This record gives sequence, C-alpha cells and structure tokens, in this order.
Amino acid sequence: MRDVAVIGVGMTKFGKFLETPIKELGRQACWEAIKDAGISPKDIQIGYVGNACLGMITGQAMVLGQIILKEVGVRGIPITNVENACASGSSAFREAWMAVASGMYDVAIAVGAEKLYAGDTRLSTRALAGGTEVEYEANLGLTMPGHWALRAKRFMEKYGTTREQLAKVSVKNHKNGCFNPRSQYQKECTLEEVLYSPMIADPLTLLSCNPLGDGAAAAILVSKEVAAKYTTKPIWVAASSLSSGTYDLDREIARNQLEEVAGRQAFEMAGLGPEDLDLAEVHDCFTIAEFMRVEGLGLVPEGEYGRWVDEGRSEIGGQLPVNPSGGLLAKGHPVGATGVAQMAEVVWHLRGEAGQRQVEGAKVGLAHCSGGGVASDTPACCVHILKK
Amino acid sequence: MRDVAVIGVGMTKFGKFLETPIKELGRQACWEAIKDAGISPKDIQIGYVGNACLGMITGQAMVLGQIILKEVGVRGIPITNVENACASGSSAFREAWMAVASGMYDVAIAVGAEKLYAGDTRLSTRALAGGTEVEYEANLGLTMPGHWALRAKRFMEKYGTTREQLAKVSVKNHKNGCFNPRSQYQKECTLEEVLYSPMIADPLTLLSCNPLGDGAAAAILVSKEVAAKYTTKPIWVAASSLSSGTYDLDREIARNQLEEVAGRQAFEMAGLGPEDLDLAEVHDCFTIAEFMRVEGLGLVPEGEYGRWVDEGRSEIGGQLPVNPSGGLLAKGHPVGATGVAQMAEVVWHLRGEAGQRQVEGAKVGLAHCSGGGVASDTPACCVHILKK
Repeated sequence: MRDVAVIGVGMTKFGKFLETPIKELGRQACWEAIKDAGISPKDIQIGYVGNACLGMITGQAMVLGQIILKEVGVRGIPITNVENACASGSSAFREAWMAVASGMYDVAIAVGAEKLYAGDTRLSTRALAGGTEVEYEANLGLTMPGHWALRAKRFMEKYGTTREQLAKVSVKNHKNGCFNPRSQYQKECTLEEVLYSPMIADPLTLLSCNPLGDGAAAAILVSKEVAAKYTTKPIWVAASSLSSGTYDLDREIARNQLEEVAGRQAFEMAGLGPEDLDLAEVHDCFTIAEFMRVEGLGLVPEGEYGRWVDEGRSEIGGQLPVNPSGGLLAKGHPVGATGVAQMAEVVWHLRGEAGQRQVEGAKVGLAHCSGGGVASDTPACCVHILKK
Repeated sequence: MRDVAVIGVGMTKFGKFLETPIKELGRQACWEAIKDAGISPKDIQIGYVGNACLGMITGQAMVLGQIILKEVGVRGIPITNVENACASGSSAFREAWMAVASGMYDVAIAVGAEKLYAGDTRLSTRALAGGTEVEYEANLGLTMPGHWALRAKRFMEKYGTTREQLAKVSVKNHKNGCFNPRSQYQKECTLEEVLYSPMIADPLTLLSCNPLGDGAAAAILVSKEVAAKYTTKPIWVAASSLSSGTYDLDREIARNQLEEVAGRQAFEMAGLGPEDLDLAEVHDCFTIAEFMRVEGLGLVPEGEYGRWVDEGRSEIGGQLPVNPSGGLLAKGHPVGATGVAQMAEVVWHLRGEAGQRQVEGAKVGLAHCSGGGVASDTPACCVHILKK
C-alpha cells in the first residue's frame, strides 16, 4: 500500500438551508477543497460521494455524486456514490483512500453531502429512521433517540454515570462550537439548559441530541509523489478501518464492540496508540454516544469518561480534546457530510489552522463515525487516523 | 494490480415478489454464490452491495448491505453500500474487484439487490425517476421512457433505423429469456405484439421497455492464489471501467460518447478488441438502448445494428450474441441487481453452464450497465470484460 496524503479540504457551514440545493452545498465544499489543494478539477482521477437519505427527502435517489462533481467541472472520471448510514462520508473518504493507496489512482476526491431539512420534519424523521433495520426497529418505534436512551440507562446503571455528566458533554461541545464559524450552533448552553430542555427519550433531552442539518464537505487525497508537487504541509492518512456488526448473542448494550474492533484495527495500522492522539472527532449523535464511543475506541478506560468529563480532560486544552469542532451536538449532523467534515476539522488542527479552537501543537488526530441499526446489529463503524 | 478471479456466482429468479423481503432475495443470491465458490462466509474479507432506490420504495434508506450480509453470517468485515443508478450492481462489482486487485483483500463479495414492486406503481415510478437529475428532468416530466423515445426518434432519423428493427431486439431478447429459468418473462413475443402493444412514449411500446422487477445477484471475487485453492475453472476479470458524463455542449443525442469512453478503456485494459468477444450483456432498458450501446461500445459499426438485427447476427448462434440471458427486456431489471446478474450470466457462459442458451465455446464476454440522468449529463457507465 502506498502512502496517501490529504492536501485539500473544504466544508460548508452546517445549518438549515431550505433554499439552497444540495448540489450548491456540494459545489461550495468541493471548490474549497480543490482551491485548498491548489489543483485543477481536471487533475482529479476518481471520486466517491457519501450520502445517506436524499432520495427520501427530495426524490433524488440516485447519481448525487455525478450531479455535484459536474458542478465543479469534474467530468468523465469514475464516480461512485457510497452509503453507510452515519458513516457514509467516512466510507467515501475510505474508498478514495483505497483508490490511491492501491496505486490505481493518484488524485481522488471524497465528498459528503446531505440535506435533512425538508420543510416537513416527519419526512426527515422517516428518512433518518431508514438507518435502522426498518422492519425490526423503526417500524416498531425503536428509532435512534429511543435506542440511545436505552443504552444510556444501562450505561448509567453499570458505571454510575450521572445525568449531569452526560449533560456536560453537550455543554463542552456547544462551547467548542462557539469557536467554529462553520458550526450550526455557535451559542453556549448551561448544564441546567441541557438537563431541563424538553425530554426526547429519557434520559436524553433536546440538547442531548444532535440537530437536523444541511451541509457538505470534501477532501482531496493524493499519492506521496503528487503531494510533494502541491504542498509542503501534507497530512497523512495513517490508518483507515471499517467494521460491521460483531456482537455476540448475549451482547451488552452498554459496550461498543463495534468500536473496539475498528479502533484496534486503526491503531494497529497506524502503529500508534490512544496516548499518541492530540485530538479526536467522535460521533456524538447523542451525549451518551460520546461516552460509549471514546471508551469503545480505547481512548479512555472503561467506565471512566464520566470522571474525565468532570475533570475537563476532553476539553480543548485538556488531556485529549474530544470534538473540538463542536461535534454533532453543536456543529450539526448532515449525515452524509459528517465523516468528511471530521477530516477537514482534523486537517485544520494538524496544520495549525483551526483558529480560536486550535489544539496547540496537534500532530495526530482521530476521526470516528458509526451508524446503522443497533438492535438489529447492522451497523457500520469507520475510523481514520491522520498525522502530520 | 493483481489478477482477480470470479469463483462463485448466484442469482435469484427475477420477478414480482411482493411477499419476499429484499434481504431474503439477497440471502438466496449470496448463499448460492458462496456455495458455488466452495468457500465459507467466514472467508469473506470485504463486501460491496449495490442498490438504487430501496429507501423510496420501503423506507430502508440505509445499511442494506449490512442487513443482507448478516443473513449469511458475514460479520465484522468492511461492508460498503454503493449506488450508481442502473450501474449500481456493476459498480459494487468494480469496487470488489479494486479491493482484491489492489492487494488489500483476498476474498470479496459483490452483491446487487432491488425491490421495485411496491404495491403502488406510482411509488416505483417516482423512485426510478430519481435516477435522473430530478430538478431538471423528472420534475419537468422527462423520465426515462420519454428520454429514450427522443433518442430513438433522432437515431431513426439519422441512421434510417425502422420501428421493425427496434422491435426485433425485443423479439430476440424475449426468445432468449425462454431458455433462462431465472428470467422474469419466459414467453416469446412476435414482431406484431411488440409493435402493437400499448404505446408508452412513441416509438417505444410496452414491449419495447424493460419491466419493473425484484431480485438479487452475488459474486465472489478472489486473488489468483485463493482461486487456485478453490477451483480449476476460474473466470478472470480482464477489465473494469467506469465513466461519467463527457458530452460536449453540442452533443448528439443519437450517439453514446459515455459508452465510447468506457468501452475503449475496457478494451485497452483487457488487451482485447470487440472481435474477441463471444457474447455481450448490454443494458437494454429499452430496445433503442441496445442499438445505441452496442454501437457506442464499438461492438458494431456506427449505424449498422439495424442490419445486424435483420440478419440475426446478435442472436444466440450469430456473430456476437447480445443479451443471451434475455436482457433487461425479458430477464427483468431490478436496478441494483442487474450489474451483478450480468456477471453471473457471463460466468455461466464462460464455464459452459448456461444450459439451453449456451453460447458454444465462449471464452470472452462483456457486461455493460449505464444509468443516471441523460439530459442533465449525470450518468454512470460501467463496463467489465471477463475471460476464461
């Protein structure tokens, strides 16, 4: 396998953009990444585009990648649309990485794009429920908030985690979002506001859940030889892993075996350990998800993230900043875009370009997305490690 | 790049299966391919699953691949869902080929699956219209039949092709379907029946259009070393190409520049020419599509397919049998499944296992799928060449 560098990233602001077509969001993100890389659209040899549920929102069930890349003048090349629920964007990034690492292509673009605001929230809810195994989960009422509420209850019982500790993750991520001009929300919230916002699925309140969002992100991945031509500051893909369901029949819903597998594989591939990380973007679709996933990935010992949160160890400036971008909770979660947007965030930190939220001296960062059905054990979990 | 062999294929019958869930169709196809290869599900290291519009039909917008592969006990591995409109299945096959050719994986499964019958034909029609750029095509009434009718008119004007010649392709493919037990239709039709079946979009009548369909197909792709362990009759992937829109602004709708690019790339990669082919499965979504695509791919000189059809040169036993399976017109077209089902058909011919429709002595076969928006120039075209 060849070394692969990220030499350009782009990302729209995440938010509610009812009047902006998805291809315009995609165009903005792609064009920023192309300009950032200093390449021409004609240099791009292959493209992968992640999206999760546009068909159910707008009827555009197919060829989104072809539509977006046409907007930036990328023509004739292989373009493939990729879906892996909440890991759709990271899976598109991973396919682009494979295309270059394999030696088959020298310049690839990975794009993620989504529009979740549909004018009618029921449409959005139904589309997002399509990330479960619908027959057994969504159709029986077990949508994502319900599922994560069940896991939260069990997690709290097992490890003694408190509602206050859960809520502190939302406070932290909203604070981080204030320093990210592309974050959907740029407004701090207090512990009380998280605890007493409307209850969605006990113990998860409104401010414990990620919002609907529209947005797009893009990244340019190239071989070592190409990287040398365009930049003196390449960011390297040190590892890429993707796993699917691995639960045993007697599985424990308070543990994330999925993350254990994908995390272990990624660290092995990178030849690095959690202690080498300077920051991590972790899929915090709900406050409890950040707990389970940082522990599943091995970033924090089992059952200890509550204490970490109390001690501020995952804040910017702490031992391991988690979700300095604001995470899904504040930055937003246009599903297909999220995985690629995480890459942009990590790249900015490793380059020292993250502005007011910069993790000082960052050399290694991890990005993690997971999605899919949990009770049905049909998930996808994608982990990347980037380094200077 | 390493040599990649197909050592197992599977395919459900195509048809209308309102009571059969898509994961059951997928399970049947995967299990047949796994048994055909003689491997265990645990041997599979990576999976790609093609689907085009299940979300709009059933609400299962995401993680279909994870759901299907769970059914056959494939666990923990990287699974990625792939969509490229009518080329979704062939794009999944192509990603699986890349994963093995790159040296990253030794055993991959490619799956295609679709359910288009929804109980309500309007749902199916709306989902399929999602293969155009909806904003500019479907929403203005330019769905696939209308589009191909326009192309047919121009093609007939330019090359003198007659309605009878167009209709003969449907007669040929329906005849071929009679010898394929997995074909949706196994019933001959006469020239008069094609010509005088209800008009859909002039000059395309009902029997000039492919039907709705449900079904699935699967293939096992492995490295040369693994192939040697399991079979003495591997079928090799000689070429894989994928292209997107390349039209000029003054494009000619009676020509298929898309196929010209993808076809040329595939023949170059294989080191073969059209004269080396023993059979071709070509995406005959409408009768006119078979004309434009065999010519675009360079299998038949420009404007001459009408004469070929009159002379029976693309029938089984002719100079180059086209769509011996019955093609989309008779075998059916469960969109995501079609590309992988084409691979199964070519493999069966190259192994001498195609029964009554066997192309005698077949050594090289081509499979072609194209889909996506045509007026909007947002298509995907995927070509594979397989050889003994």
